[in-house]
Amino acid sequence: MTTTAPTGEAVESELRRVSQTVRRAMLGAVPDGEPHRWLYQLVRAYPSRPGKAIRPTLCIQSCRAYGGSDADAFPVAVAIEMLHNAFLVHDDIADGSELRRGRPTLPADHGQALSLNAGDALVVLANQVLRRHARTLDDEIADQVLDEFDTMALRTLEGQATELGWRRERVVDLTPEDYLDLVLHKTCWYTTIHPLRVGALLGSAEPSDMEAMVSFGFYLGAAFQIRDDLLNLIGAEGIYGKEINGDLYEAKRSLALIHLCGQVRGDDRDFIAHYLSVDRSERTAQMIDEVRRLIDECGSIDFAADFARGIAGAALQAHEAAYGDAPDQRSAGFLKAFVPYMLGRSA
Amino acid sequence: MTTTAPTGEAVESELRRVSQTVRRAMLGAVPDGEPHRWLYQLVRAYPSRPGKAIRPTLCIQSCRAYGGSDADAFPVAVAIEMLHNAFLVHDDIADGSELRRGRPTLPADHGQALSLNAGDALVVLANQVLRRHARTLDDEIADQVLDEFDTMALRTLEGQATELGWRRERVVDLTPEDYLDLVLHKTCWYTTIHPLRVGALLGSAEPSDMEAMVSFGFYLGAAFQIRDDLLNLIGAEGIYGKEINGDLYEAKRSLALIHLCGQVRGDDRDFIAHYLSVDRSERTAQMIDEVRRLIDECGSIDFAADFARGIAGAALQAHEAAYGDAPDQRSAGFLKAFVPYMLGRSA
Repeated sequence: MTTTAPTGEAVESELRRVSQTVRRAMLGAVPDGEPHRWLYQLVRAYPSRPGKAIRPTLCIQSCRAYGGSDADAFPVAVAIEMLHNAFLVHDDIADGSELRRGRPTLPADHGQALSLNAGDALVVLANQVLRRHARTLDDEIADQVLDEFDTMALRTLEGQATELGWRRERVVDLTPEDYLDLVLHKTCWYTTIHPLRVGALLGSAEPSDMEAMVSFGFYLGAAFQIRDDLLNLIGAEGIYGKEINGDLYEAKRSLALIHLCGQVRGDDRDFIAHYLSVDRSERTAQMIDEVRRLIDECGSIDFAADFARGIAGAALQAHEAAYGDAPDQRSAGFLKAFVPYMLGRSA
Repeated sequence: MTTTAPTGEAVESELRRVSQTVRRAMLGAVPDGEPHRWLYQLVRAYPSRPGKAIRPTLCIQSCRAYGGSDADAFPVAVAIEMLHNAFLVHDDIADGSELRRGRPTLPADHGQALSLNAGDALVVLANQVLRRHARTLDDEIADQVLDEFDTMALRTLEGQATELGWRRERVVDLTPEDYLDLVLHKTCWYTTIHPLRVGALLGSAEPSDMEAMVSFGFYLGAAFQIRDDLLNLIGAEGIYGKEINGDLYEAKRSLALIHLCGQVRGDDRDFIAHYLSVDRSERTAQMIDEVRRLIDECGSIDFAADFARGIAGAALQAHEAAYGDAPDQRSAGFLKAFVPYMLGRSA
């Protein structure tokens, strides 16, 4: 049941195609009404900026792998991407971020209050897109798709709460296992697990428990997030689209930072404890440079990169259980090609 | 078709009854899972505090008026109240408020980021409650209920955006008509129009356009909001539950403030223009006292109170068109008794 594996280039080309069509559909789902300058202009901002479209692409390919067409999954893929955009707006408020997809964040341009409100509107519009499509489905499938969407949203908010809680309470002693549990909630449910599961469900048009997609999605999503955190340390700002070292200013508990916390001793340990204990506004450029130096010294970047390779190996194993018997092995192979893509991407 | 009108006491007693049962149902809809201290404890905070329950009570009474039972409307009433609680959390972030229902706001206790996230979870849970009930309904009714819910949420966010936009851009020249248009979006759709419409829909179990409820809901909701704004100026903090004069610190465009802006001349006008142009943090207690003094001097409170009485008169007229032919005139009369209740309430 093997076919020639698609190249990284093929994955990127498909992502670009989906990004464009999903972007058009998202913008089409935003009302033309008033107030334009205080609401709908803001609602359109992030959906207008080209994103990677990983989530909708996974959803569409998983649908194809299980015998469906692009059209069977497309509206749900659009709803997922709209919810993702809503989360980005609210994350940028919570994190005080300045750059998103290479341009100023919504809160940087319009303040927190209007941005919060625009993020709420994106949540409502995502639900609207999802529900309108659910009406066209068999009742049982529709219920399962809607339930999965709610579950996914709650898992994501649970993960976000845990990460914010760690930062707020200056939690220091974390392990890679804590990190993986965080990433499972915060990232994997909505980035990989849900798109894959719901895609397979729409493709096969039969209710099922889709348990196998949880493992594959978890490992694939963890590889994605570890790479994302690494790009924040080593990426090129022009390509990456966010502030380099922004995560260090936020003291985000990335795998590299968790590794560093476990390695440092003596004065360095006191310094890191101090760095974690102060507010973001008190973290100077000099302090960040010193943390960055310690990360290199302790080999924390290599640790995270090696860890990601291990997780990617697990993803390849799990892929077989989830898609080995899927009717369309071309699309199944395409999903497999996402594993090396997640490890190597530079944006 | 007239029956003895219920007293204000009967309205308050029914509100207390509904408040208690809705509160229990909201808390029952919140998962018991983790992270408790960073998410679900926050999600439970506002639903645990006794609220007025105006929205669910209107929904249930409108359902009864059109021949339904409490149970026909109850889950939808709960979903509306949960969305209301989500909006309260996000409003308290946007406004920097300190008190809600007599206790510290969520952002005052847990910071903005965790509160924003908890508000998002309340939106998801409200949708979950609504969808689960929609499954038990006839398809056509279910679709209409869900569509009305989305529309209601968008109208509210549009109104919120306009109000925040006015404040952000220091808009000064507003008329009572601008205020009414704001209130229609920001308050009436989700406080009165939607609960009444969807209640009638669930009671009659027949799709219909429910146009007559828009007028009654609009006038009833406007009377509610004008009274709410007045209580912020003249209420007793222990009963009212929010900071007295909090709206003046935010320079919220209430009917009294809009009236004042139209009345002041000379130095007073310059002073008010200055007051509107500075940030909230620059508004001193002395400045607020002076604004409050001008409000008295210009009769702006009397103006708003008189305006509310006019609107209440219109509400009584519109009630006849909306509920004059409703099968259960006892509940129809109950809805009519809300008009004087909205004008006279002290909390």
